[in-house]
Amino acid sequence: MNSIELRKIIGIFLTFGIMSVAQVGWAQQPEVASQTQARDIPAKKVPVPTTLSPELTRVVAEPIPAIPTLKTSDQWRQAQKSLDTARTELTMKLAASTGAKIEEIQIAGVRCHRVTPAEISKGFENRLLVHVHGGAFVLGGGLAGAMEAVLVSNATGCVSLSIDYRMPPDHPFPAALDDVVNVWKELTKSHSAKTMALYGTSAGGGLVLSTIHKLKQGSIPLPAAIFAGTPVSDMTKTGDSYYTNSEICNGLGRYEGFLEDAFRIYAGAQDMHSPLLSPIYGDTAGFPPTLLISGTRDLFLSNTVRMHRKLRESNIPCDLHVYEAQSHADYLKAFDARESKDAMREIREFFDKHLEHQ
Amino acid sequence: MNSIELRKIIGIFLTFGIMSVAQVGWAQQPEVASQTQARDIPAKKVPVPTTLSPELTRVVAEPIPAIPTLKTSDQWRQAQKSLDTARTELTMKLAASTGAKIEEIQIAGVRCHRVTPAEISKGFENRLLVHVHGGAFVLGGGLAGAMEAVLVSNATGCVSLSIDYRMPPDHPFPAALDDVVNVWKELTKSHSAKTMALYGTSAGGGLVLSTIHKLKQGSIPLPAAIFAGTPVSDMTKTGDSYYTNSEICNGLGRYEGFLEDAFRIYAGAQDMHSPLLSPIYGDTAGFPPTLLISGTRDLFLSNTVRMHRKLRESNIPCDLHVYEAQSHADYLKAFDARESKDAMREIREFFDKHLEHQ
Repeated sequence: MNSIELRKIIGIFLTFGIMSVAQVGWAQQPEVASQTQARDIPAKKVPVPTTLSPELTRVVAEPIPAIPTLKTSDQWRQAQKSLDTARTELTMKLAASTGAKIEEIQIAGVRCHRVTPAEISKGFENRLLVHVHGGAFVLGGGLAGAMEAVLVSNATGCVSLSIDYRMPPDHPFPAALDDVVNVWKELTKSHSAKTMALYGTSAGGGLVLSTIHKLKQGSIPLPAAIFAGTPVSDMTKTGDSYYTNSEICNGLGRYEGFLEDAFRIYAGAQDMHSPLLSPIYGDTAGFPPTLLISGTRDLFLSNTVRMHRKLRESNIPCDLHVYEAQSHADYLKAFDARESKDAMREIREFFDKHLEHQ
Repeated sequence: MNSIELRKIIGIFLTFGIMSVAQVGWAQQPEVASQTQARDIPAKKVPVPTTLSPELTRVVAEPIPAIPTLKTSDQWRQAQKSLDTARTELTMKLAASTGAKIEEIQIAGVRCHRVTPAEISKGFENRLLVHVHGGAFVLGGGLAGAMEAVLVSNATGCVSLSIDYRMPPDHPFPAALDDVVNVWKELTKSHSAKTMALYGTSAGGGLVLSTIHKLKQGSIPLPAAIFAGTPVSDMTKTGDSYYTNSEICNGLGRYEGFLEDAFRIYAGAQDMHSPLLSPIYGDTAGFPPTLLISGTRDLFLSNTVRMHRKLRESNIPCDLHVYEAQSHADYLKAFDARESKDAMREIREFFDKHLEHQ
């Protein structure tokens, strides 16, 4: 075996993580790429795994949808308005089919939807789950945003209060965050924070995390636990999966275009590195116990796992669940799948473990 | 806004997980791909994230190494032999620089390496961490395999016993598993299983999980906790990340070639769906508390998260940690990086939580 063959074998051996040549000074590493140089990944074919439930299979098999460009305020408003009827119908159908009750109420001047499941679980009678909906900070207004709250209330047997926060184009940052914080503050007057959770997915997960930063600043009581599903923890294109899962995640497709535009219209003039927009950049000391969910194909996989590491480094009890082949928030899309029921079980167990009964 | 534009918007809205059109019967989903049809992912450029430590950056920036073809038994033997001196030197250097002591001992007729760190941590005096090395079931024999044991013993302040199990081409399955099980059985005669952990990475992680199946079959006491780092939980090309992270993971590169060949020479005539080869296919009821580690670029990300889900479905306390931009077992390659020290801290805390003191 000559030296070139030996070097090849050593290369392989390195791949199994047994040694780090450069770090023990044993030999020079050949051809180390520049750290700023992007690596070329060839085109590939990715099948739907055979291990998924039929319901999830259908969602994973979907192609990336055509993503239109929405630039002007009128285009954003028209898109939001066009969806109202359909979205409301969906949430209402889900509520009707499960026997959940939805009431519109005002708290601290903010419209909210109170979701009461058909059955309240033992131990959850005096707990309250406060919900912050997703939709890239621009979609999910009205009853559409309450859909996740219906799912989580049904799964936990606990009342949810879903906050219908203000959104762009009329109300950019910090309107949404102010609404969530003001509702939370109002609720703490009548409820012990130790009996309440705060939760949401995507933009909702990002808002939950930013809300904790804001509550900490104001020395306002924190929730007993939070669930941040595949959260927008970093609006800037920094996380690895913004690249590795680009064109693989059929939930979001890619950072460029609709998603980036939505982040920009929400952030306005504010630097996206603000912890109130990208909570990964804040101090996570003292955060509540946190549940995080993502999928192997999720464009926000890095948003999720980076937040997990940051919280663990602050010694926060923090559970991470990553679902096979799921793109962004597939547990809400394929909500009848056994994988989604499993996610809802994790949410229920997590809240049951960390929330006081009162 | 016409109906085509509306459908586009609805597509987007779906991407934010607010609704599942097909499942509420609201409308037919257009153009659902066949579930067996592979999706085409275009070529892309993937940069090294700017958030990593310098040590990890160097490892993540490495190109995928050239991977030679080893087919005959003589080629495998030559490759194994060629690496012995270099690998031994690496483990010895790491031990010497950290003051760890390595002794060769025989247990149940199997060669093992007993690793004693320079300092034993309070509470870890009477605990024992039993190590199963990685290397695709074909590499890592002799002192090379003890490298991870030196790292973990140093990080925990606890003695490791690293099992130098038999390997192909002379000793295919079930030789390695038999060796691990026999060493474990012998150890339980002198140590309470409640004070012992079993751990390993890659093939080592797979062997740890298969060992639990085997111990359960024999009603042999189980370890108090296990750590399976990016384990071979499925030797068949079933997991999603075998595809999505192919050519992205610079630790393993791809399933085809060296990795598949190594699995085949180890499995021999045995069906790879056996839980003793691919532990994902076994019953995980009653498994010990389990720690799992992977990375967003890991070819074994799905091997790891599928095992996590399976264990959670069996109600096993099971912690998952996924590191930003890491490929397969980078925590062993970039062992000086802060990210790797963080992983070692998680391992230490997990064992400290679950192992009795005696």
